[in-house]
Amino acid sequence: MSAPANFGNARPIIDPDNAAMLLIDHQSGLFQTIHDMPFSAVRAHAVALARMATLAGMPVITTASVPQGPNGPLIPEIHASAPHAHYVARRGEINAWDNPDFVAAVKATGRRQLIIAGTITSVCMAFPSIAAAHDGYQVFAVIDASGTYSKMAEEITLARVVQAGVVPMDTAAVASEIQRTWHRDDAAQWAEIYTQIFPDYRLLIESYARAQEVQKNQEQLDSQRG
Amino acid sequence: MSAPANFGNARPIIDPDNAAMLLIDHQSGLFQTIHDMPFSAVRAHAVALARMATLAGMPVITTASVPQGPNGPLIPEIHASAPHAHYVARRGEINAWDNPDFVAAVKATGRRQLIIAGTITSVCMAFPSIAAAHDGYQVFAVIDASGTYSKMAEEITLARVVQAGVVPMDTAAVASEIQRTWHRDDAAQWAEIYTQIFPDYRLLIESYARAQEVQKNQEQLDSQRG
Amino acid sequence: MSAPANFGNARPIIDPDNAAMLLIDHQSGLFQTIHDMPFSAVRAHAVALARMATLAGMPVITTASVPQGPNGPLIPEIHASAPHAHYVARRGEINAWDNPDFVAAVKATGRRQLIIAGTITSVCMAFPSIAAAHDGYQVFAVIDASGTYSKMAEEITLARVVQAGVVPMDTAAVASEIQRTWHRDDAAQWAEIYTQIFPDYRLLIESYARAQEVQKNQEQLDSQRG
Amino acid sequence: MSAPANFGNARPIIDPDNAAMLLIDHQSGLFQTIHDMPFSAVRAHAVALARMATLAGMPVITTASVPQGPNGPLIPEIHASAPHAHYVARRGEINAWDNPDFVAAVKATGRRQLIIAGTITSVCMAFPSIAAAHDGYQVFAVIDASGTYSKMAEEITLARVVQAGVVPMDTAAVASEIQRTWHRDDAAQWAEIYTQIFPDYRLLIESYARAQEVQKNQEQLDSQRG
Amino acid sequence: MSAPANFGNARPIIDPDNAAMLLIDHQSGLFQTIHDMPFSAVRAHAVALARMATLAGMPVITTASVPQGPNGPLIPEIHASAPHAHYVARRGEINAWDNPDFVAAVKATGRRQLIIAGTITSVCMAFPSIAAAHDGYQVFAVIDASGTYSKMAEEITLARVVQAGVVPMDTAAVASEIQRTWHRDDAAQWAEIYTQIFPDYRLLIESYARAQEVQKNQEQLDSQRG
Amino acid sequence: MSAPANFGNARPIIDPDNAAMLLIDHQSGLFQTIHDMPFSAVRAHAVALARMATLAGMPVITTASVPQGPNGPLIPEIHASAPHAHYVARRGEINAWDNPDFVAAVKATGRRQLIIAGTITSVCMAFPSIAAAHDGYQVFAVIDASGTYSKMAEEITLARVVQAGVVPMDTAAVASEIQRTWHRDDAAQWAEIYTQIFPDYRLLIESYARAQEVQKNQEQLDSQRG
Amino acid sequence: MSAPANFGNARPIIDPDNAAMLLIDHQSGLFQTIHDMPFSAVRAHAVALARMATLAGMPVITTASVPQGPNGPLIPEIHASAPHAHYVARRGEINAWDNPDFVAAVKATGRRQLIIAGTITSVCMAFPSIAAAHDGYQVFAVIDASGTYSKMAEEITLARVVQAGVVPMDTAAVASEIQRTWHRDDAAQWAEIYTQIFPDYRLLIESYARAQEVQKNQEQLDSQRG
Amino acid sequence: MSAPANFGNARPIIDPDNAAMLLIDHQSGLFQTIHDMPFSAVRAHAVALARMATLAGMPVITTASVPQGPNGPLIPEIHASAPHAHYVARRGEINAWDNPDFVAAVKATGRRQLIIAGTITSVCMAFPSIAAAHDGYQVFAVIDASGTYSKMAEEITLARVVQAGVVPMDTAAVASEIQRTWHRDDAAQWAEIYTQIFPDYRLLIESYARAQEVQKNQEQLDSQRG
Repeated sequence: MSAPANFGNARPIIDPDNAAMLLIDHQSGLFQTIHDMPFSAVRAHAVALARMATLAGMPVITTASVPQGPNGPLIPEIHASAPHAHYVARRGEINAWDNPDFVAAVKATGRRQLIIAGTITSVCMAFPSIAAAHDGYQVFAVIDASGTYSKMAEEITLARVVQAGVVPMDTAAVASEIQRTWHRDDAAQWAEIYTQIFPDYRLLIESYARAQEVQKNQEQLDSQRG
Repeated sequence: MSAPANFGNARPIIDPDNAAMLLIDHQSGLFQTIHDMPFSAVRAHAVALARMATLAGMPVITTASVPQGPNGPLIPEIHASAPHAHYVARRGEINAWDNPDFVAAVKATGRRQLIIAGTITSVCMAFPSIAAAHDGYQVFAVIDASGTYSKMAEEITLARVVQAGVVPMDTAAVASEIQRTWHRDDAAQWAEIYTQIFPDYRLLIESYARAQEVQKNQEQLDSQRG
Repeated sequence: MSAPANFGNARPIIDPDNAAMLLIDHQSGLFQTIHDMPFSAVRAHAVALARMATLAGMPVITTASVPQGPNGPLIPEIHASAPHAHYVARRGEINAWDNPDFVAAVKATGRRQLIIAGTITSVCMAFPSIAAAHDGYQVFAVIDASGTYSKMAEEITLARVVQAGVVPMDTAAVASEIQRTWHRDDAAQWAEIYTQIFPDYRLLIESYARAQEVQKNQEQLDSQRG
Repeated sequence: MSAPANFGNARPIIDPDNAAMLLIDHQSGLFQTIHDMPFSAVRAHAVALARMATLAGMPVITTASVPQGPNGPLIPEIHASAPHAHYVARRGEINAWDNPDFVAAVKATGRRQLIIAGTITSVCMAFPSIAAAHDGYQVFAVIDASGTYSKMAEEITLARVVQAGVVPMDTAAVASEIQRTWHRDDAAQWAEIYTQIFPDYRLLIESYARAQEVQKNQEQLDSQRG
Repeated sequence: MSAPANFGNARPIIDPDNAAMLLIDHQSGLFQTIHDMPFSAVRAHAVALARMATLAGMPVITTASVPQGPNGPLIPEIHASAPHAHYVARRGEINAWDNPDFVAAVKATGRRQLIIAGTITSVCMAFPSIAAAHDGYQVFAVIDASGTYSKMAEEITLARVVQAGVVPMDTAAVASEIQRTWHRDDAAQWAEIYTQIFPDYRLLIESYARAQEVQKNQEQLDSQRG
Repeated sequence: MSAPANFGNARPIIDPDNAAMLLIDHQSGLFQTIHDMPFSAVRAHAVALARMATLAGMPVITTASVPQGPNGPLIPEIHASAPHAHYVARRGEINAWDNPDFVAAVKATGRRQLIIAGTITSVCMAFPSIAAAHDGYQVFAVIDASGTYSKMAEEITLARVVQAGVVPMDTAAVASEIQRTWHRDDAAQWAEIYTQIFPDYRLLIESYARAQEVQKNQEQLDSQRG
Repeated sequence: MSAPANFGNARPIIDPDNAAMLLIDHQSGLFQTIHDMPFSAVRAHAVALARMATLAGMPVITTASVPQGPNGPLIPEIHASAPHAHYVARRGEINAWDNPDFVAAVKATGRRQLIIAGTITSVCMAFPSIAAAHDGYQVFAVIDASGTYSKMAEEITLARVVQAGVVPMDTAAVASEIQRTWHRDDAAQWAEIYTQIFPDYRLLIESYARAQEVQKNQEQLDSQRG
Repeated sequence: MSAPANFGNARPIIDPDNAAMLLIDHQSGLFQTIHDMPFSAVRAHAVALARMATLAGMPVITTASVPQGPNGPLIPEIHASAPHAHYVARRGEINAWDNPDFVAAVKATGRRQLIIAGTITSVCMAFPSIAAAHDGYQVFAVIDASGTYSKMAEEITLARVVQAGVVPMDTAAVASEIQRTWHRDDAAQWAEIYTQIFPDYRLLIESYARAQEVQKNQEQLDSQRG
């Protein structure tokens, strides 16, 4: 059935206190194969996920696919942004869920919801998502913090994971579903996260601040000096 | 299940007498983050929704996300086009459905169908849609009277709300499902609404009127004067 | 449920002996609002549908939305290509299924499968499709013999009709599912139909014929005369 | 030579006191053939030209190609925005410059610079531009206040008019070259014109005004009320 | 110099009484390599050129590149639309201008202006255009009645032929520069040609005729019968 | 139901030991009608499928639609890459599943999973996929090793096969689900397969090898010699 | 003439010792009107220009258009990256070259070559470029470190400035023409600049470093541990 | 002047006996920064150039930019396809023309025409092209056998090199201008080269051969066996 799997009668949304984040195979080499969206957006979105997990105190597990080979190293910003993240080395398994250490690490978090992003989308993200949903987890797949070799491949994968009962998410929806409200002390840090997801937000903040400053200081317009 | 939720055996269409319209967070700042379609089309479509609700005597509820900050003010045309709309101020909640006043206002309409549009799509539109469907409402999400930061984000959200049992709609379908027939006194006002949704319709009306006028007045073609 | 409605255990495909074709509102004015694909392709595809119904002896019902007004006249090729088609005038109803004469005409065919195309997609095609599926028909919606005002509107409508249990089809699939085999006397006429759907097929036929002619006549290449 | 024709040693820019504006064949029917850009942008840009001519007190001449036929009527906003505009009826000539009344009207303005826009670009705009440049005028062709049937056709025309010594302009450049400075009493009206050219500018103005208002009134953020 | 070559002080436009049309290598096989625009538009535009030459009594010369091989046959509509066209067989030369018979045929027309289209653009169209311009002809290259393997290849060729002094044209501009006025007996045939270039024009004519018919016959709107 | 058909409680993934591969109608003529993706990518992906089946020892069945006619011959690389493939000639049936020899050949493999690709997507791939799923097979449709006449046609087909319970796959996902791990002796051959699917992978391998060689040989940078 | 103006017989390239850089109106508000390329790329490219000027010890002059109003503040990274830059406040003039202080500041550098970027392209970049070229400067316009409201507007502007004798540049060409060689002590800082222009370069550096590290340390592949 | 430089009164075309080919910096790393066209097309086109030079006996000079670093190795197919090519190592100079060995190698060929391709376009191709034209060579820049980081960067470079008097070419035009005629013994090898430039040509050859074979062998259509 294409409905979200394993939710029963619960509303199919992220519960920050019951979710763990899995960031899989965000590697410099694999990033060069991304063509469904700019790889730099994938990179920014993956980092945004790491930051929001840190803000929310959510467990993060990372892994990489043979990072000693052409796939290249894990991008450094992920662990920099989520210092508490736990890296699991695999032994060549393509599907991270085929690696017992990885599954054990997930289980050790005690969480029943998994937020998953990975490169490439149809493999590194989709395989563990489908497996985890089959094993009873509530799974949220962050399609645009993942990347793959064509827009069509992304669309096919979206259809496949939905068919398997996974909930598809974009990065902004994950952020907002974790944040929940602007009435919190770390609101400014969340605003900063949105500038990583849609950079126009940075312009809004800059223009807003300047407009208020002009009003506050009663500054004259340059054109009035003319 | 991906079928429309809460319809039972009813045909899954809008019943103008049982529907309320929720227009959420159509704000000048947020509009600047829209990249899945031209923001000016989102703006025109949102206004078209407000106008059709007014024509049909349908309740409208509006709200905004921290309109005193960088998100900017609610665009003025919405209340101008639906003077009967009821504005609900929130207290920082991202999901309007998390605000008790908002849910109360919806309940107060007595309607069991909700037509929802909002910016940004995956958050301001999707969160209340999923929540309302979970709470038993029949929900229609107007994807192209909402806007978000990428085409991919829009596609992901479409998949998510369908998975949650929400009925996806475009703005023209909402108009026609409310209007139902051209055999009504306000037909010309509905035609005007379509010119907001697909501006070519304005050209059709202009050309049609002129062609009839030429025939009626037996005007000579300029090229026949040559 | 998103599975095809009303098929029970039957394979969800067209049965040419049990299907009728509904061609709705293919009008010159409405065509000018089409932006999800070139309107001339919609026009060619609608005509191709009319031709294949004629070849297969399948009932065709047409209708138009206020063709005396800006929506413009029904394009003439449809009835030219399907002289047996039955035109039903409506009385302003937007959803053809709301017109009793139209539903009666459908019922009179005795067919339980409906192949539906219409302009604009989300309204003229989708409304009768959803209604007919709800009334127990097996419905096939020909998305690319319909046209609408944006690609996004088309995608939204595709999702909506699938959610309602309608089977989505492209024009070529309809042709092939009716034709079934090249081992038939009218094979050349079917080949001609495909040139309406993907015009490259005409090039293939031209090049193929010429290559065989050169071989047959042992013609010299121009470059060998040099 | 591809350099701007007839400028001699002068800087090749618009001199508002020596320029006239020619708005040619902006008609409802022809607009339906535009595919190099949204026709509604062509419409908005043409109106913006009319408005800026009015603000600057610049002569405007309009004309239409057989507006009694399928080409349709001149869009009404042009004369509404430039009440001083002079309409010249032609006698079937495609190139407005082939009509003696039109050339006489241009000459009567006494201006030596012509700002020309027209639909369709490669014909109604390009033909008079090439002719006028050949006759010694300094010509500015406003490519994006004109429209044509394909992006490629627009690109070909751009190359042709540049080859003929015409200066290519976009609508914003025309506005700014006429306005010259924000230090003028009608600055707000010019800002309004830019909102016609790039509608984001309207969002900027709205957000700016609100941000200053919040500061001025010391309004509390909704999220601080939480 | 990039200015139009060989015009001296003449206005750089087509003189229908001094021009010949060269239609080169419009073949079924080569058409399958076209990716800068839909090949069917190239086909329609080439046929439109043949028709307008026929209407204007302008000489037409055709040729093909080894039509006995994979390049395929000349498309039949060209000679069907211009029965007076003269076909010149080459002997393997890629540049038609390298074939003495071809150059002799051009010379025999006595015309000093050449309107050239060909597939593929950068070769079959560009090579003879550059050669003819170098030999003193005034050359008009019809870029969008030619086709090539990528948009970039088309753009490169546009730049190259302009650099060589060739005048770039789109098909509509050629038509209008030959037709010159609607005040002519064959106006309806020219209107028909435009429907080949931008098919929307056919819709305009259909809608216009119907609107006038409704007015003339005082027909009731269907919706008024409701 | 849109969930994957016939999996029961099994995880909906490829089991290399229980799957057969069906490569249908990858023919030179039909390839010329492909416009949803570059046909050369379809060609490369189909060949990649053949190679991975060979590496995995998986049965392959091929067929073609009237390869003596304009559809053209089967591309030769498929049998070259999968010498063990079994070719089944049809008798004009469009749906390969309508041919008893084809169904018998599938049955003879003893496999219950089918990986299906074909040109054109909505017909040659979709028809057998829907039929096989209806007959109890677990079906994986490889959308991007198939090709069709428009992106919209591909999207419609994706929706239709998902509705019918088929699992949608991209070519890379098929490869990885068969390969499962890099810890295998033929790992280099799998890497070679990925260079067929996303050619950037070849660049990664080249750059990686060179970087290691420079380090190993302690080569000086050219710029250090300067 | 369209050749580069004012170069005489010199090669038309940047001479780092004779060039000054003008960065005009890169403001948060104006950035929100950019639609010819992602504004974030314009931002990164403008910053890259500032950095390369700093590395090369080249004078930089900045200015802004009424930064107290809706156009918003100058983005802070420019002065942060070029601390030696000289900011000139204008008095409402749209063309910076109309401001005497600005022209004086340019003259004070003693440089005869100007590298100019600005937002929006057709105004803030083009006007001073044309004026400076007319006044005898050798001008290089950095089109993709400027931004404007449509791709078409950018193309029109490119044609206009080339016509006026300005040399069009992309940001990478400016960097390389200033840098000239990798045989310099600050080579790593130039590599860093390229990562701002095409972010893939950062991936190349990361992958290269890791590949060498693996070789140097004789690390085992994870898949060999399997 | 934008006319082709250094041709005097000669026709501005390639003379195979007077031309040398320069293939610059086609390296695995740099290829990963290409976004104006698929890098694999650049790769195929560069190899096609090498092959045609070999067929024509034309000198080829190659070089690379610090191939020991992140830019990666020269792609091996170039020297494999042009075994007679002469590789010149540079010493860090970005512009190959700044390297005395490179200029000497060019001079040593005795050719006065240079066909130049390079990655990235605006630097590695454009800099030597502009320098060589300035030094009196007739230069042909093969824009689509070069690659760069954005379509806009390619367009800017096209404009710049045309302004500098370089002749812009696409790869197919280069092939045809060297080949000149199909009446030559190596015609089949030239046909093979075109399959590298537009792969559809391979389909044409395959379909053509099969059609002739069917005719020759009087094969029955499969559908006639039905």
